[in-house]
Amino acid sequence: MQNWIEEQLHVLNLVDSMEQEQGFTRLGYSAREGEAINQFERIAEELGLTVRCDSAGNVMASWTGSDPDLPVVATGSHLDTVHQGGGYDGVAGVLCSLAAVKQLKEEGFQPKHTIEVINFRSEESARFGISTIGSKAMSGQLDPTIGSVCDGEGISIEQAVNECGFNWERFQHAERGEDELKSFVELHIEQGTHIEESGAHYGVVNAIACPIRLKVVVKGKAGHTGTTPMNKRQDAFVAIAPLVNFANETAKKLNEENSEAVVATVSTVDLAPNSMNVIPGEVELGIDIRSVRDDLKETVASEIYHKCKEIEGESHVTIEVETLVNNASVLLDEQMQTSLKAISDEVGMKSIVMSSGAGHDVMNMQSKWPSGLIFIPCEDGLSHHPEEFSSLEDLLNGTKVLANYLKTEAGE
Amino acid sequence: MQNWIEEQLHVLNLVDSMEQEQGFTRLGYSAREGEAINQFERIAEELGLTVRCDSAGNVMASWTGSDPDLPVVATGSHLDTVHQGGGYDGVAGVLCSLAAVKQLKEEGFQPKHTIEVINFRSEESARFGISTIGSKAMSGQLDPTIGSVCDGEGISIEQAVNECGFNWERFQHAERGEDELKSFVELHIEQGTHIEESGAHYGVVNAIACPIRLKVVVKGKAGHTGTTPMNKRQDAFVAIAPLVNFANETAKKLNEENSEAVVATVSTVDLAPNSMNVIPGEVELGIDIRSVRDDLKETVASEIYHKCKEIEGESHVTIEVETLVNNASVLLDEQMQTSLKAISDEVGMKSIVMSSGAGHDVMNMQSKWPSGLIFIPCEDGLSHHPEEFSSLEDLLNGTKVLANYLKTEAGE
Repeated sequence: MQNWIEEQLHVLNLVDSMEQEQGFTRLGYSAREGEAINQFERIAEELGLTVRCDSAGNVMASWTGSDPDLPVVATGSHLDTVHQGGGYDGVAGVLCSLAAVKQLKEEGFQPKHTIEVINFRSEESARFGISTIGSKAMSGQLDPTIGSVCDGEGISIEQAVNECGFNWERFQHAERGEDELKSFVELHIEQGTHIEESGAHYGVVNAIACPIRLKVVVKGKAGHTGTTPMNKRQDAFVAIAPLVNFANETAKKLNEENSEAVVATVSTVDLAPNSMNVIPGEVELGIDIRSVRDDLKETVASEIYHKCKEIEGESHVTIEVETLVNNASVLLDEQMQTSLKAISDEVGMKSIVMSSGAGHDVMNMQSKWPSGLIFIPCEDGLSHHPEEFSSLEDLLNGTKVLANYLKTEAGE
Repeated sequence: MQNWIEEQLHVLNLVDSMEQEQGFTRLGYSAREGEAINQFERIAEELGLTVRCDSAGNVMASWTGSDPDLPVVATGSHLDTVHQGGGYDGVAGVLCSLAAVKQLKEEGFQPKHTIEVINFRSEESARFGISTIGSKAMSGQLDPTIGSVCDGEGISIEQAVNECGFNWERFQHAERGEDELKSFVELHIEQGTHIEESGAHYGVVNAIACPIRLKVVVKGKAGHTGTTPMNKRQDAFVAIAPLVNFANETAKKLNEENSEAVVATVSTVDLAPNSMNVIPGEVELGIDIRSVRDDLKETVASEIYHKCKEIEGESHVTIEVETLVNNASVLLDEQMQTSLKAISDEVGMKSIVMSSGAGHDVMNMQSKWPSGLIFIPCEDGLSHHPEEFSSLEDLLNGTKVLANYLKTEAGE
């Protein structure tokens, strides 16, 4: 099993080695994501699974149950990445799901419920600023107006979807009925250090901290850097730069005052015109705020808003703050948490209950079906980075937990 | 003349109206710059001038003198712009030069020295980060290794030059001998408010403040915005953001302490990966520092360097400061200044002597030939901006000064 996992880890990542200085770039609805999905389909078929694709590009690999009329027990994750990301975020869940099926087949297990390994399309928001597009479509959470949202190169979601061989007009047909699935479980790398620090083998997630995302648009006035006197400038970057540290400090302070974590990051900046000899006339910042406590997110957003108004009052710029996303935190199924925790005794591992600072496909699935999330450790919590790493042991442990879970959930 | 100038202003800018919300974008060695140059050639030929192009793409429009063996009296400027710049920077000088020739022809003047109107290629540094490429080639100031320098889309100077129909291998053949030219004068918009504020009609420039340009590269560590705790981050943007205001404040303070002006601008920023859900792992800032007093520029650069070392000591990032450009200020020909000032009495205008905060093609020409620079006012000093504006009256005044200058300098 160990060799098989290592081999498929490379295959799904389209590489010969996990040491990739430039990391892994498989953006949602890109050809590169498609190549990884092709490998997923090939592996699934080798395991004797039946592969089909829905109208959003999600792929379902099915192991037909002895009673195929029963609702499906589903598991899975995604294969897309951020720009220059790691090779475990998403891949770990898809890989452990396939490995769990392989283990159960080798053990001669025959499920009563059909088991499905799902690969969701375009989970990361890196390309279009919108996350979990595939699972949104499957769970009926999709806002159909997002088709016109464009990536950095001006390609719209509609166009990207169509170029992948799908039809945006039929995208929402991917939605599945409530009675089609019994439950869904996702395995994912933690992207943090709680498991490591507590000496556990895996985490059982109780809630997902969904983000508030702000866009801050600052308008000053462009001008020649050499000829515009310092006291006659309306430099948009000079005006807004203190907000970068303000957001950081505000979140830090709230962490000291509260037991639940809250994080805030100015993660994107675009200057116009961004030319060496022109004073920045316009700046756009993207800010990501997360906590499982929605009130803490609101506090950070509100303080940022007021800081912007204060800056506007003190300098010759105008500032607009737009809320791009404001999603309430998602509580995962309690019964599922109990089952996932119980497995630790069966397999001789230690588990902890924890929250997730990152969104995952499971949060959309939970809106329609009882759903759960298993975290496996990743070294130093490093993620969305070329050096992101989970050990083979962690992947094997995850596989074991998933297999035990599927055995009970799908019945024999 | 007024109608002719207004019409050619539109023609050279390739527009029907100077009201262009998105401004004017004709980057160096782009097809769009080429289109404007074609119009320049057409107008010059209509005025009876002989047009030729050198191996760097500079165009010379000649009015042959009665003694064609005498060295050439040259004037001119450029037609390229920054991204979304104004329609007067560069164009004003080319246009007034052509208009001055037209005026002299209408007056029945016949020059003894050949008069040349030169259009220099790629004056702005907006595309390649390197300014005045055409005039560097003509004056023998070109560093031949710049061929490999790329624009934001990865196109090298060599490639861009070749795609314009020139041959990078022959680029340096554009250099002209010291005895070919008698002198050079450029007319340009001021890009500041000194003329306006002093109630003068035009400025005679005594020195040009060339920039020190720094590249600051900050390396922290990327990570997931939702899962990386605030106290475990190496956010490169949080570390370096204070430098934006530090550079601004340092220049402001030096202006209060000194009579000569110094300006500093953090004008470019590039974040990696610049994704909403990834902590900025790397930031690159571009800083432009100018003064006619080289010691003041050095002071700002040195304070920025020390601030970077201080930040590096206090945070978990590494910072490298690279000096991209450090050019000493250029003093223009004194005899030329005297001649240009004297014209104010002849034409009944008021002139002031001033320095230039921006670089111009004339600074390269001065390295080989006696050269001068005339500034005409531009509204509110606004430049490199769609609303950049010089009045028809200012263009007519500039034409008159240039015509009077050429009459004396080229002789009859």
